[in-house]
Amino acid sequence: MGFLHEGHLALMREARRHADAVIVSIFVNPTQFAPSEDFETYPRDFDRDVRLAESVGVDVVFAPSNRTMYGPNHETYVDLDILPKYLCGASRPGHFKGVATVVTKLFNIVTPHVAVFGKKDYQQFILIRRLVQDLNYNIRVIGVPTVRESDGLAMSSRNAYLSKEERASARSLYQGLQQGQRLVSGGAINATEIVQHVSEFISSHPYTDIDYVTLCHLETLAPVDEIKEEALLALAVRVGSTRLIDNAILNRI
Amino acid sequence: MGFLHEGHLALMREARRHADAVIVSIFVNPTQFAPSEDFETYPRDFDRDVRLAESVGVDVVFAPSNRTMYGPNHETYVDLDILPKYLCGASRPGHFKGVATVVTKLFNIVTPHVAVFGKKDYQQFILIRRLVQDLNYNIRVIGVPTVRESDGLAMSSRNAYLSKEERASARSLYQGLQQGQRLVSGGAINATEIVQHVSEFISSHPYTDIDYVTLCHLETLAPVDEIKEEALLALAVRVGSTRLIDNAILNRI
Repeated sequence: MGFLHEGHLALMREARRHADAVIVSIFVNPTQFAPSEDFETYPRDFDRDVRLAESVGVDVVFAPSNRTMYGPNHETYVDLDILPKYLCGASRPGHFKGVATVVTKLFNIVTPHVAVFGKKDYQQFILIRRLVQDLNYNIRVIGVPTVRESDGLAMSSRNAYLSKEERASARSLYQGLQQGQRLVSGGAINATEIVQHVSEFISSHPYTDIDYVTLCHLETLAPVDEIKEEALLALAVRVGSTRLIDNAILNRI
Repeated sequence: MGFLHEGHLALMREARRHADAVIVSIFVNPTQFAPSEDFETYPRDFDRDVRLAESVGVDVVFAPSNRTMYGPNHETYVDLDILPKYLCGASRPGHFKGVATVVTKLFNIVTPHVAVFGKKDYQQFILIRRLVQDLNYNIRVIGVPTVRESDGLAMSSRNAYLSKEERASARSLYQGLQQGQRLVSGGAINATEIVQHVSEFISSHPYTDIDYVTLCHLETLAPVDEIKEEALLALAVRVGSTRLIDNAILNRI
């Protein structure tokens, strides 16, 4: 969706390692925003994006207009039955239908052999792997670890929305994930207990309003009651009016 | 879906004219059948199908198993918002979702430059053209006119279900379409009047039970009140327990 940061550039560098030609789409996709969300205000800086893409060796930037992507009679959508019910899908109905549809369209336009997605949007990454398998795309989907600011905050174009005070509180998301890992390393396995601890920690910071904190299965994204070997600790938190997400895989070992 | 007849062979001959390699899918797609429908009993004769396909110069027959097409965790579907509401979609909820999904999968597996569909399934033809445009497939969709028996009955694998008496009554579908064209040639433009006449004609034959008779727009499939220049006269009729469809474009000139 553009307004590129180091997280995006990491995706491009990874793509560069696998591909003869690297194509980057920059498209703030209207169908994945609810009417109440920030489609209009989503930050955009196309010229800067092109310079940054070029600086890491991208060959083509594909930046279509809304009208190019969605003609006046557009009525075909791709959706999944189960994965969108969890995590962000629960509070953003229709979001992943928009994601699945636009990614299908981009796949058909670009016809890539390899597609690179960030694991900050872990649910999106899992969903696209599922879509690729279910719809028989001959595309290798690669996930890239989240790139973070020096204090741990996951890079996000939406971080630009944060005031100075909100930015300070936003550190609690990553710190909460770290606390979750510490609990598990210390022997905790009960999901309710871990989730409650992390939620209380984040809520103790000003401006924060938790959408969800969940421990779930790495592949199905279904909530787990306890951690067997590993599980995903995923969270979405409003900091001021900015909705941020983050996640970490917690390991028992 | 196999159990090939001359209508299918016409598609293959048309494909042969456009393509270096012709690939035919033979797959009775479970997701386009409702539980009450004839998925289990749908006629199948794979060896005969392969011989017939070979006889018209087909290079590859792709006949996957259900498990190949729909793995245990399959949950991704393609659907359209509007076109499936009309005609057969109204009485077969979910049917075109199954069609759109399997055709998307077949497109991704085969990656054709040209795809050939029959116009007996006119709604399917229009829907796939829409899907190709909406999802940005670089595929030319070609429609082939309905092939008919000597008495006008549209060729269909399901004709094999008809008893001798039902087969005689089934002629009324094509005859009804012809009567519709005669009315229009004689100056009729009112859709209700034409539909009523055709419906009464078909209903006067034993074993017939009309699902719908509709005059609709050639592209949107929305019902029309009157015929401007041309319109599609489409119908679905149960003859005994066999559901048959047919259609014709009616012209005012």
